[in-house]
Amino acid sequence: MSTKKTTTRDPSGELVFVGIGLQSDRDITLAGLRAAQACDRCYAEFYTSRPGVSLQSLNDAIGRPVEVLSREEIEQDDAILSAARHENICLLTGGDPMTATTHIDLRLRAVERGIPTRVIHGVSIITAAAGLLGLQIYKFGRTTTLAYPEENYFPLSPYHVIRQNRGRGLHTLVLLDIQDERQRYMTIPEAVELLLEMEQRCGDDIIMQDTLLAGVARASSPEPHVSAGFPEQMLAMDFGPPLHSLVIPGDLHMMEARALVELAGAPDELLKG
Amino acid sequence: MSTKKTTTRDPSGELVFVGIGLQSDRDITLAGLRAAQACDRCYAEFYTSRPGVSLQSLNDAIGRPVEVLSREEIEQDDAILSAARHENICLLTGGDPMTATTHIDLRLRAVERGIPTRVIHGVSIITAAAGLLGLQIYKFGRTTTLAYPEENYFPLSPYHVIRQNRGRGLHTLVLLDIQDERQRYMTIPEAVELLLEMEQRCGDDIIMQDTLLAGVARASSPEPHVSAGFPEQMLAMDFGPPLHSLVIPGDLHMMEARALVELAGAPDELLKG
Repeated sequence: MSTKKTTTRDPSGELVFVGIGLQSDRDITLAGLRAAQACDRCYAEFYTSRPGVSLQSLNDAIGRPVEVLSREEIEQDDAILSAARHENICLLTGGDPMTATTHIDLRLRAVERGIPTRVIHGVSIITAAAGLLGLQIYKFGRTTTLAYPEENYFPLSPYHVIRQNRGRGLHTLVLLDIQDERQRYMTIPEAVELLLEMEQRCGDDIIMQDTLLAGVARASSPEPHVSAGFPEQMLAMDFGPPLHSLVIPGDLHMMEARALVELAGAPDELLKG
Repeated sequence: MSTKKTTTRDPSGELVFVGIGLQSDRDITLAGLRAAQACDRCYAEFYTSRPGVSLQSLNDAIGRPVEVLSREEIEQDDAILSAARHENICLLTGGDPMTATTHIDLRLRAVERGIPTRVIHGVSIITAAAGLLGLQIYKFGRTTTLAYPEENYFPLSPYHVIRQNRGRGLHTLVLLDIQDERQRYMTIPEAVELLLEMEQRCGDDIIMQDTLLAGVARASSPEPHVSAGFPEQMLAMDFGPPLHSLVIPGDLHMMEARALVELAGAPDELLKG
């Protein structure tokens, strides 16, 4: 009987992905909180998304310490999978966990080892940014990400995604680079500068002087900031602390135009025509 | 002095939109919970999205009664706006609040009356469905919604959205009709039947015998179910209680193919070639 118990206990470890959303001490859901409190070990990673506020406030919200893992520990080590064989492990991640490819990969590696997995969803920038601007989620095309360029590395794919979406009248959410290990978070003005540089190189008239852009800073924090304007205006704006995101609106429904004017200070002319 | 106080108190009412995600008693965030507990009155609406579990469990989670409003009370009445002039009002909604156009409209009507508004984000089907299937959110095109057809009403736009997305290799999330007042929630087999009917009418070879489809039921509940297969298989599957969503995958990255096979039981052939 007792042997049986041990046998059933042994493979009863599991790996639970818990999304803690965009603001570490307030976006965790009740389900996430309960899982984090009930598990044997609680890990977190912040290199795919850096939620606002500190690790301390996350520890306080959960009521127990959380151990932060590096990219290598998630992607290459098998430590977390070895632990999940015999223990209930929570991995806390920014946003909704499975929006990061690296977590899909980790989940599949767990499944292949016969380790049960669960996903507890979290608030995501994908819907939060659209919502704060009053833009309809159904009118967004593909999402893209702007990376900091490096020597011999200046990917133009974000520009092409925006071009394709605009060609169908769709909005584009542009996520901005997070280099957590260097404490470097791309700002909206930096992103606008990169897009203008891509326009120079590609010349498809996508990001022009009169192209309306919309920025979202600190989505889901108590003090989010949204502002819409033309590139020159956006370059001069101070959006405050990270994280920042950018939206390139496509064709605007009248209600969306009203929202950009009233919520994000876009020019009134948007409402004419 | 006391007059001044009254004047500042008077317009200090506010309207707070609180996303309660997909499962009413476990998806609310700590921020949402605090707002709902601290406000003067707590309303909810369930016609844009019906979170799983009961109103009672939502009341229990928050620790106070929640009054459910009808579509008319949200869209036509000004009662909620009148109340928000002088009181702190929370409106609890399924998903992430601003993914429903009706909430953007309500927020703009509040802003136009000078009523402060806030948004507390929630877990959304937009990222949850993709994540449970292991499909990359960056490879989704525009989202579409399938409505129950009515006499002289059989919109083909979902078919065209799928066609356009697939033309670019992108996945499509198809949200299924919710007719809460009639307790009618479209199932995945019903949705597949409608898509096959659209294929018959349009004939663009988008939904064929060998088109892989993926269904997600009860996302974010303790027992979500995902299953991928061809139309004939999907028609015969029982996905259990609502809510259901459907994804039409576009081109699959190798990791996505592995995910569909390992998490959703898609045929092994997906991994060859």
